[in-house]
Amino acid sequence: MPPQRATLMQVAQRAGVSRSTASFVLAGRHVDMRISEDARQRVLRAAQELDYRPNLMARSLRTKVTRTIALVSDTLASDPYAGRAIQGSLAAAVARGHLLFIGETDGDPVVEEKLISDFLDRQVDAFIYASMFTRYVRVPKLLKDRPVVLLNCLTRGARPVQHQIIPDELTAGADAAKVLLRAGHRQRVHLVGTPATKVFAGRERLAGIRAALADEGVKLAGVVECDWWPDSAYEAVSRALDDGFSPSGLICLNDRIALGAYQALRDAGRSVPQDVSVVSFDDSELAAWLRPQLTSIALPHYQLGWEAVQTLLGPVRDPAVTRLPMPVRVRASVGRPPVE
Amino acid sequence: MPPQRATLMQVAQRAGVSRSTASFVLAGRHVDMRISEDARQRVLRAAQELDYRPNLMARSLRTKVTRTIALVSDTLASDPYAGRAIQGSLAAAVARGHLLFIGETDGDPVVEEKLISDFLDRQVDAFIYASMFTRYVRVPKLLKDRPVVLLNCLTRGARPVQHQIIPDELTAGADAAKVLLRAGHRQRVHLVGTPATKVFAGRERLAGIRAALADEGVKLAGVVECDWWPDSAYEAVSRALDDGFSPSGLICLNDRIALGAYQALRDAGRSVPQDVSVVSFDDSELAAWLRPQLTSIALPHYQLGWEAVQTLLGPVRDPAVTRLPMPVRVRASVGRPPVE
Repeated sequence: MPPQRATLMQVAQRAGVSRSTASFVLAGRHVDMRISEDARQRVLRAAQELDYRPNLMARSLRTKVTRTIALVSDTLASDPYAGRAIQGSLAAAVARGHLLFIGETDGDPVVEEKLISDFLDRQVDAFIYASMFTRYVRVPKLLKDRPVVLLNCLTRGARPVQHQIIPDELTAGADAAKVLLRAGHRQRVHLVGTPATKVFAGRERLAGIRAALADEGVKLAGVVECDWWPDSAYEAVSRALDDGFSPSGLICLNDRIALGAYQALRDAGRSVPQDVSVVSFDDSELAAWLRPQLTSIALPHYQLGWEAVQTLLGPVRDPAVTRLPMPVRVRASVGRPPVE
Repeated sequence: MPPQRATLMQVAQRAGVSRSTASFVLAGRHVDMRISEDARQRVLRAAQELDYRPNLMARSLRTKVTRTIALVSDTLASDPYAGRAIQGSLAAAVARGHLLFIGETDGDPVVEEKLISDFLDRQVDAFIYASMFTRYVRVPKLLKDRPVVLLNCLTRGARPVQHQIIPDELTAGADAAKVLLRAGHRQRVHLVGTPATKVFAGRERLAGIRAALADEGVKLAGVVECDWWPDSAYEAVSRALDDGFSPSGLICLNDRIALGAYQALRDAGRSVPQDVSVVSFDDSELAAWLRPQLTSIALPHYQLGWEAVQTLLGPVRDPAVTRLPMPVRVRASVGRPPVE
């Protein structure tokens, strides 16, 4: 059993003062309440000796502020990299003197409603509503009219009702294309990975890539269709190479695809970056582990979490969509195009 | 601003009953308090119309139970794979009707004390004290005599004061060796990775490996010393191969080391598993992505979290150390030894 809590009355009795004197001292109001330094010292000593701690829950019934935030996500804690958004949220919450509840709904609306309801029963001050993949969501009814910031998700509709923090995938796409353009690749630049239009990241990355290439009068030479996983990419790129595929530069829609492409290129005797340059997205740990190390456009998971909580607890502003920059991590996978 | 909460009195007034009648109905005590079905229906309807929710914080001041757990770790949320322990804890907490706070201390004792103190101020019922790597810890003074379970960490001393849930690294080491023994490897079995004695996993894995080999009259042929990262392993194994290193089986102390070993073997023209069999630990995502796929002994992060919370909220038992099994994930990286 936890030790019995010392009460304010016990502190007051030990210090030989009234309950209200003890309360004023512990709230730092000894000056305006004209409490003697001697009494103040006695109260502080008694509080220390009894390991007294103010009951924040009792206080919150009066002030209606518990200084707690709840982070509600579909599956954020489950994903190795997206989990860093939790870390960023946590750091920002603590920096502003708040504590963080977390909950996962697995995308189930019934579970979600129960969870949010449980948080509300505990008088949570504010919410982060988060998604593992960037996507469009409907904000649950229970969160309407409460302080809430969307992390890595968006609402449809002309004007946002809540703040929404997402990665700037459009610029990231353009940056990936520019990495190849600057190295001199103007032909045989191919995309690897199916950019399903319902996947926000894929759609925006492709739009950014096309725009940046078009600015330089370059066209995407083609798309190697595959799922966003190493084995699917390996098979698709291997099959294409068998059929005479001869790219100068590959833009892989994520690092897992790039791993599969590396494996296929190697088995076909093509070197990165001597024969083929490769650029990718996400900057997962994997990118730095490949040989040669992979140039990748980073998903700023930690910053998304940090910014969401800062926005939630910061000064009130009109709701808006904030797109966070995705940094380019330049490594060794991009070189000059091979001489024809 | 969040909508103003409906009070119990408002529910009672709308239903045309006394405050205590409303309270008994909402607590499901209408039978023993002999409340009419008509009155009960009116209260339930009023509660629904007003979106009334019982104030759990007020209730907890009376019952002293908030049904919240805090998970305090050094850097658990920061690590891609260890983060799954949070997911397991979360699932078990929710299954038992509890909510989960999380906090990271980065191993700083001052931060840790402040954080635990903040959780105590919010009347958290119980604690999970967790470490990213399995290691020995001192339980913070503030947690003494409270309900606490250690997740992935241990205390020194003959008799545990708290429950401690750790992975069974000793058996995992033996299992890794047995994978090679069963495939027929009796000679030229080498360890890759420095098993620093202060690292719990390394020490236990090595002890398990040696014991299982000794049972079959086999000796570890040697250790390729390197850090537990791909680049260090790549360099160490490449250098050894240059010097005539000719292993039959490699036991890599984690998957990252195995990745570096794969890269070095490939560059030296050795095939896995035709020339060299490889077995590893952790079963991170990487293991299934390598070509050939890597046989690895899994770290059960999710189960560690699940079991820690179940132990915390389950029936009271004498504190003990629980070692959870590390499953063997058999894939394609182990074959028969090459014919000499």
